[in-house]
Amino acid sequence: MTSRESLDRLFEYLRFPSISTQPEHSADVRACAAWLSDFLNGIGLAAGVHESGGHPIVLARNSHRADRRTVLLYGHYDVQPVDPMELWTSAPFDPVIRDGLIAARGATDNKGQTFAHLCGIASALEDGGELPVNLVVLIEGEEEIGSPSLPAFLESNREQLACDVVVISDTGMLGPGVPTLTYGLRGIAALEIEVRGPAIDLHSGIFGGAIANPITALARMLATLHDDHGAILVPGFCDAVRPIQAWEREAWAGLGHDAELLRVSGAPALAGETGFTPTERIWARPTIEINGIGGGYQGEGTKTVLPACAFAKLTCRLVPDQNPDTALDLLEAHLRRVSPEGVTITLTRGHSGAAYLADPHSGFGPAAQRALQRTFGGTVALIREGGSIPIVQSFLEILGVPTLLLGLALPDCNAHSPNETFPVENFGAGQRLNRVLLGEIANA
Amino acid sequence: MTSRESLDRLFEYLRFPSISTQPEHSADVRACAAWLSDFLNGIGLAAGVHESGGHPIVLARNSHRADRRTVLLYGHYDVQPVDPMELWTSAPFDPVIRDGLIAARGATDNKGQTFAHLCGIASALEDGGELPVNLVVLIEGEEEIGSPSLPAFLESNREQLACDVVVISDTGMLGPGVPTLTYGLRGIAALEIEVRGPAIDLHSGIFGGAIANPITALARMLATLHDDHGAILVPGFCDAVRPIQAWEREAWAGLGHDAELLRVSGAPALAGETGFTPTERIWARPTIEINGIGGGYQGEGTKTVLPACAFAKLTCRLVPDQNPDTALDLLEAHLRRVSPEGVTITLTRGHSGAAYLADPHSGFGPAAQRALQRTFGGTVALIREGGSIPIVQSFLEILGVPTLLLGLALPDCNAHSPNETFPVENFGAGQRLNRVLLGEIANA
Repeated sequence: MTSRESLDRLFEYLRFPSISTQPEHSADVRACAAWLSDFLNGIGLAAGVHESGGHPIVLARNSHRADRRTVLLYGHYDVQPVDPMELWTSAPFDPVIRDGLIAARGATDNKGQTFAHLCGIASALEDGGELPVNLVVLIEGEEEIGSPSLPAFLESNREQLACDVVVISDTGMLGPGVPTLTYGLRGIAALEIEVRGPAIDLHSGIFGGAIANPITALARMLATLHDDHGAILVPGFCDAVRPIQAWEREAWAGLGHDAELLRVSGAPALAGETGFTPTERIWARPTIEINGIGGGYQGEGTKTVLPACAFAKLTCRLVPDQNPDTALDLLEAHLRRVSPEGVTITLTRGHSGAAYLADPHSGFGPAAQRALQRTFGGTVALIREGGSIPIVQSFLEILGVPTLLLGLALPDCNAHSPNETFPVENFGAGQRLNRVLLGEIANA
Repeated sequence: MTSRESLDRLFEYLRFPSISTQPEHSADVRACAAWLSDFLNGIGLAAGVHESGGHPIVLARNSHRADRRTVLLYGHYDVQPVDPMELWTSAPFDPVIRDGLIAARGATDNKGQTFAHLCGIASALEDGGELPVNLVVLIEGEEEIGSPSLPAFLESNREQLACDVVVISDTGMLGPGVPTLTYGLRGIAALEIEVRGPAIDLHSGIFGGAIANPITALARMLATLHDDHGAILVPGFCDAVRPIQAWEREAWAGLGHDAELLRVSGAPALAGETGFTPTERIWARPTIEINGIGGGYQGEGTKTVLPACAFAKLTCRLVPDQNPDTALDLLEAHLRRVSPEGVTITLTRGHSGAAYLADPHSGFGPAAQRALQRTFGGTVALIREGGSIPIVQSFLEILGVPTLLLGLALPDCNAHSPNETFPVENFGAGQRLNRVLLGEIANA
C-alpha cells in the first residue's frame, strides 16, 4: 500500500458523517461501519459488522495461532458533531490536505489515528506476509456518546475477544515528534439540568419581579459549583480523589506543557484550581464543566421575555478513585439543595465511565516505550491525559487486560472543534509504529 | 362599519408579520405601514407614511379647528418575534377567532387595541359625521425595539403634532370588564453581555481544569446581580428609587392582583424581593431580568466542549426616579468588577427609556375615569404597570403633554408569548370607549 493509496482510502473513510449523537446521522454511521468492514476484508483480515443494540461494531481478525500473543486494536469510527459550521475553513466531511495537515471531522479523533494502524497492518500482510501476533480489531461507533453498548458486547464475546493487551491510539503526543505513552485517563459523568418556571414565556414587564426567572435560577445554581479560586464546592465530590504521586509532579513539571496549553487554547490566560499547576489540573484533578447552556431569546435584538425554562449540559471529568455514580449522586443532591423557590428542576443523567490509571513501568509498558523510541527517537514522555476513554476501564474489568495508549494527535489538532486536523507526518508515523509495536509485544 | 367589517379589516392588519427587531421582516413592516395609511385615508382622515430613519411612521388627522381640544392617539403596528413557533396553536400571522378570542401575534399588543380606537373613529366619521376634537393619529413601527426614531421625529414635527393630551391603549385591564386607568409605567434599559475565553471551542477533557469556562464565568457574574431574597445587589442601582406612596399600597392591596398573577403565569409559586407584595414588585420596584442566555452545545445529546464564548441578554425595568443611563453605568461597572480572570467581556447597550408617573386625580385623569366608567360600569381601578412605553416620557418632555393609558388587554392575553389573543368583546368595548372618551375630553 503506497502512501498515496493509504491517504486515498483514509479520505473515503473521513467522508462519512458518522456523528453518533445525532439520530439523523444513524444511516451514515451504519454506512461507515459497512465501508470499514469491507476495507478490513480487503487487506486480508476476516471482518464483519456486528449489531450491538446501538450503532454497530466492526470486528476483524487474522488466523490465530496458540503460540503467539494476542493484541486487540481498538478504535472508533464515530465522530463529534460539527457545529458551529460557520467556523470551518473547509467542509468537515470533504477532507483536504492543507499545510501538511489532513483537515476533516474525525481526522485525528479517531479515524486518522486508527487508520494509520490499519494501514500498517495492511502493509505487513501485503504479498502474503504475516503478523507477529494474533490480532483482533474492534472499532466501535459509539465512543463519542460514551460507548453505551460496548461493555455488554465485551461480556457476550469474552472468548472471541480474549487477548493479552489492548492497543489504542486515541490520545495525544506532547508535541510534534515527541514519543508519548499515556498511562492515565480521566473518567466522565454527564448531567443535564432543566429549570422550569412559568408555563410559557412571559412579558418581562408585566410579570418581572414577582415570578422567578429560570435563567437567573440556573445561573445561581451553577455559580455554587466552584469557589472563587476554581475549587469544586459540591460537598463530598473530591473526597475519593487519589493524590498525585511525587514522581509524577516532578516528571510533569519538566514537560513544558503549561505554555503549550496557553498557546493552543488561544485563551487570554490559564486559570483553574489554586494549589495545582495547569497540567496537574487537567491530568489529575476532577472538573465540573458546563458544555452548553440555553434559555429564553437568543436571536438578534431584544425580546423582553421572562422565559419559561432554561437548561445546562454538564460533564464532570473524574480521576482515580472517584466512582461516576457516586459523583453524580453528590452533584444531583447539591443541585437540588441549592435550587431556589419558584422553579422546578429536572436532572437527567447521561453517559459515564471511570478514570483509568496503569503503572507505565510494568507489564507491556516497557515494550510500548521501546516501540515509541524506535519510531520517533528521543525520550518517551510519560503522561496522563484529561480526556476520557471509558472503555479502557471496561477492557480491564471485563477482559482483564491492560491498555497501551499510544497517542498520535497533537495538541492543536482541534479534536471536538471546528477545523479538526491530523498531520500527514503522524499518519505515516502511526503506520511505522504499528509494525514495530506488534514486534515488541510479540517479543516482550 | 359593522362589527363584521371591523373584524375583517383587523384580520387584514394582523396578517402582516411586522416584526421590527428582525431585519428579514423589514419589507413586511413597511407593507404594514402602507396598508394602515390606506385604511386611515379610507375612513376619511388625511393619512400618510413618513420616513423616520428606521421603520416608517404612519400619521393621520382630521380637519382641525381652533376652538377644539387636540387629542393625539398613539399606537404601534410592529410586533414581537414569534418563537418558539412550536408552541403556537394556530399560525401567528393567520388570525382566527377561538372561544371568543382573536388569536394572532399583535392581536393585543398593539394592533388590536389601536384598531379598536380607529374603528370607533371610523364609525363617528361615517355618513359625514364629525369628531368632537381635533385628532392626530400617530402609529409607529419601532415600539418593540424601544422607539429609537420617534423622539427625533417628535422634535422635528412639534407643530404638526401639537396637542393637549395623548391617548394610548397599550396596557392592561385588571380583569375582564374592570375599567382600568394606568397612571405609571416602568422604564427599561437593555444590556447584552458577551464572555469570551479560548479562541475556539476546546475539548473539555484535554483542556478542562486549566482554562476558564465562559459559561461558568457568565453564570457566576449573573449570580451576583441579586441576593438570596431577590433584592438587586448592584451597588447604587436602587438609590434613586422613589418610595411607594401610602394611598397606592392601600389601593393596590385591595385589587386581588397577586392571585391573578400566579394563575396567569402558570409558575409553581410567586417569588421576588422580600418586603414588597408581588404587585408592588412589578409596579414600583426595578428588576434586572435575564431575557436570554446561550453558549456551547445546545443540540441533542452531549458534546464535551469547553466553549469559546457565552452571552446573556438583560433588560432592567426601571421606576421613578431612576435614570436609564445611570442604571446602565452602574450595572456595567458592577459586571466589570465581578468578571473573573481568564475571560474577556464585552458589554453592549440596547434601547432604554425612563419610567412614567402621572397623578390620576388631576389634568385629564378625571375625564378618562368618567369615560371608562360610562363604557364598562363599576369602579375604575387606578394602577401602575410593570411594562414600558418609553415614548410616554418623550411625549411629556418633547410635546409637553401628559398621556392617558387606557388599557384593553387582559392579563392572560399572552403579549410577547405564543398564542397571543385579544377578546372580541374588548375589541368592541374599545370602539365604544373611543367615542365617549373623545367627548369627555372635549368637554373637560
